[in-house]
Amino acid sequence: MVVGVTPQQNDAIPADATPAPAPLTPQQYGVGARFTLSVYDSDYVAIILGALAEADAAGLTLETGDISTFVTGSEQRVLAYIRDVVAAAARSGAHLSAAVLLSRGCPGELQCALPAGVAAIGADPVTLDDTGVRARAHWSLYPLLDGGHGAGGANGADAGGDADHMTPIYAAIERAKAEGVYSGSDHYATRLDGDLAAVLQTAANAWIGVGRTVQHVVTHLTISINSPSPIRD
Amino acid sequence: MVVGVTPQQNDAIPADATPAPAPLTPQQYGVGARFTLSVYDSDYVAIILGALAEADAAGLTLETGDISTFVTGSEQRVLAYIRDVVAAAARSGAHLSAAVLLSRGCPGELQCALPAGVAAIGADPVTLDDTGVRARAHWSLYPLLDGGHGAGGANGADAGGDADHMTPIYAAIERAKAEGVYSGSDHYATRLDGDLAAVLQTAANAWIGVGRTVQHVVTHLTISINSPSPIRD
Repeated sequence: MVVGVTPQQNDAIPADATPAPAPLTPQQYGVGARFTLSVYDSDYVAIILGALAEADAAGLTLETGDISTFVTGSEQRVLAYIRDVVAAAARSGAHLSAAVLLSRGCPGELQCALPAGVAAIGADPVTLDDTGVRARAHWSLYPLLDGGHGAGGANGADAGGDADHMTPIYAAIERAKAEGVYSGSDHYATRLDGDLAAVLQTAANAWIGVGRTVQHVVTHLTISINSPSPIRD
Repeated sequence: MVVGVTPQQNDAIPADATPAPAPLTPQQYGVGARFTLSVYDSDYVAIILGALAEADAAGLTLETGDISTFVTGSEQRVLAYIRDVVAAAARSGAHLSAAVLLSRGCPGELQCALPAGVAAIGADPVTLDDTGVRARAHWSLYPLLDGGHGAGGANGADAGGDADHMTPIYAAIERAKAEGVYSGSDHYATRLDGDLAAVLQTAANAWIGVGRTVQHVVTHLTISINSPSPIRD
């Protein structure tokens, strides 16, 4: 996992320029997730605690509250952790849903600790091994365009008054189709269907990809597993 | 509930101008929600079906799938419906969570049926009677700035290269504080705490308020009710 200036930005630095400041860590850049795992079963406490105990939290900072769990670290570790927790809970056989928010480029709490317009920092795509757990999800991607440099569409267009925030979203949907997890488009969300790992990987890599050119990018997933409801395609 | 040109836009129309086209309906403007109600109880099917049977869906279009339920109609009716469904489920005493997405300004499925840059259309604030159900939530608000006219900050700033998407978010948090439901700010989300109706009303009215000047606005809530976990403030 590489977090640092993008190749494009490196190219723009003359050989005799002053050295760039140390790259931001994922935590400094605000890379992380907030998720809520809901288990439709009266035994939910044991199922959730068991799933948390199974998952490897190495390299991550976790804060669990009564509404959701915050996790920060590298993209690869954050996504692998969410995959492991949700997959472990799913193996109980219980119906469950997971509301997952991934964010980058706006660390801090009440206010962004980074000002708008810092250079957008991408990362290597995440690679998640399959879980054997089928997941269906509604997925939304929000490039929160800033006017400063570093903001722009996933297609590399310059930011500015004419930037279209839908362009990188459409590009991400095309990639989901190519990856075989696209299941349809509903109002406000794209439907994904596949191994839990593939669903998370598709959403995360779109978020990382848009993040190469847009500083503040958020994506939301509502994942459903083991539902007794008929699948609607 | 009034959906149409805002007073500011009316003021700008000369008396002898050609009549404005008929205002868009909420459905045409893409006003609606997608929500997933998760009940942490083995009896979840009966609890959810009972809650849906109790709620009044008059004036709304509903589509329920295996991942989430889509609802469209006026802001007031959409929010009252979500309040009623969630409150009815909560009265079972079961722990539950609800993932709620509200969207406006981008109707359609794979592509926005409205082009970016149509006039932003606000609405009257919603007014929701209390439910007696305490809710805690993580709330995020996303003004998806477009470069076209109609886009800009909630503070009335002009859209353009310097538009700051965080300004309307900070203003909305200040309003949540004034309304007494602000409970704190966490990474990526603001914590709300209060009657379920007040929590929904605060989030919805921020979404509507930003929507007066920004065409495409989305807000997400993860609501937790009847949690046995210690409350973290």
